[in-house]
Amino acid sequence: MILRNLRLSINKTNVLDKSILLDIYGKDSFDFTVKNDQGIFVCSKFKELDLIELDQLLQTVGWSRRPIRRVKRALQFSVLVVGLWRHDDKFPRLVGFARCTGDGILEATIWDVAINPVYQGLGLGKVLMKYLLKELKSTGISKITLFADAGVIKFYKNQGWTLEPNGTKCAFWYAN
Amino acid sequence: MILRNLRLSINKTNVLDKSILLDIYGKDSFDFTVKNDQGIFVCSKFKELDLIELDQLLQTVGWSRRPIRRVKRALQFSVLVVGLWRHDDKFPRLVGFARCTGDGILEATIWDVAINPVYQGLGLGKVLMKYLLKELKSTGISKITLFADAGVIKFYKNQGWTLEPNGTKCAFWYAN
Repeated sequence: MILRNLRLSINKTNVLDKSILLDIYGKDSFDFTVKNDQGIFVCSKFKELDLIELDQLLQTVGWSRRPIRRVKRALQFSVLVVGLWRHDDKFPRLVGFARCTGDGILEATIWDVAINPVYQGLGLGKVLMKYLLKELKSTGISKITLFADAGVIKFYKNQGWTLEPNGTKCAFWYAN
Repeated sequence: MILRNLRLSINKTNVLDKSILLDIYGKDSFDFTVKNDQGIFVCSKFKELDLIELDQLLQTVGWSRRPIRRVKRALQFSVLVVGLWRHDDKFPRLVGFARCTGDGILEATIWDVAINPVYQGLGLGKVLMKYLLKELKSTGISKITLFADAGVIKFYKNQGWTLEPNGTKCAFWYAN
């Protein structure tokens, strides 16, 4: 798999032995290194997530805790769940995450995009988003949406996302 | 079922014989009349939709046509699909529609809210939204979102939706 326009952050791809990659991370995973020599990273949609590890990751980016049981069910009902791992033959470490919900036909919405702050600034978020989009596009989906927090609007704009097309605003209702 | 804060638009509720309501529209449907005596309307999440009729409804509000086959699959993968019908014992007519996607646990997103222009201005959209929210809330969902077109931002604001919380913006990617 080749992801374009990522020359700035990606150093090398296909760095892992193919059978090791398949064994640990499953089909369609994407392995790469970044310029600063932080090791090998892998995007995978099949490698099972440890929900405690995921909870810890989401906390490192400052998100409020959600009951593990509900998160587990929410992941089951997501159309795509992607982990970004710092590779280790024995103990790969979850350093990034994102998931998509939606009907998976006409639309999908990306949620919970997170990169562990220790690994931020290496371009991992861009690679993760490219991986997500590639996977979603391959299903023939018509429209992909997301809600961009104020702090990451530039991040998405720079990647070619259309912000507020035709004056569309997002509206939220929260349970009390 | 009692929907509050709708005194301005709803005239009477429980106007249909309960067995007729159940027979035609299924469990948890909501029947009501509006002030201008336009007949009886019913919100239903179980009555089967004729996809041609739905396509025609969505066209009356100016939406581009989508392949019926894809719409059918998208509805199958939605967590809630609601029709708003103008009641007739033999031929109920679809005059409104909305659906929700999402994981149905942590979040749901409302899409494709439409009222036939002939029936706009009677408050039907408000009733439909209240019905949707009631159904979603009953599942214990944490967060409900939608993308409000420029022309209906006031409509959602007036119903208590939070617009762009903390500067959140919506971002779209469209298939070419």
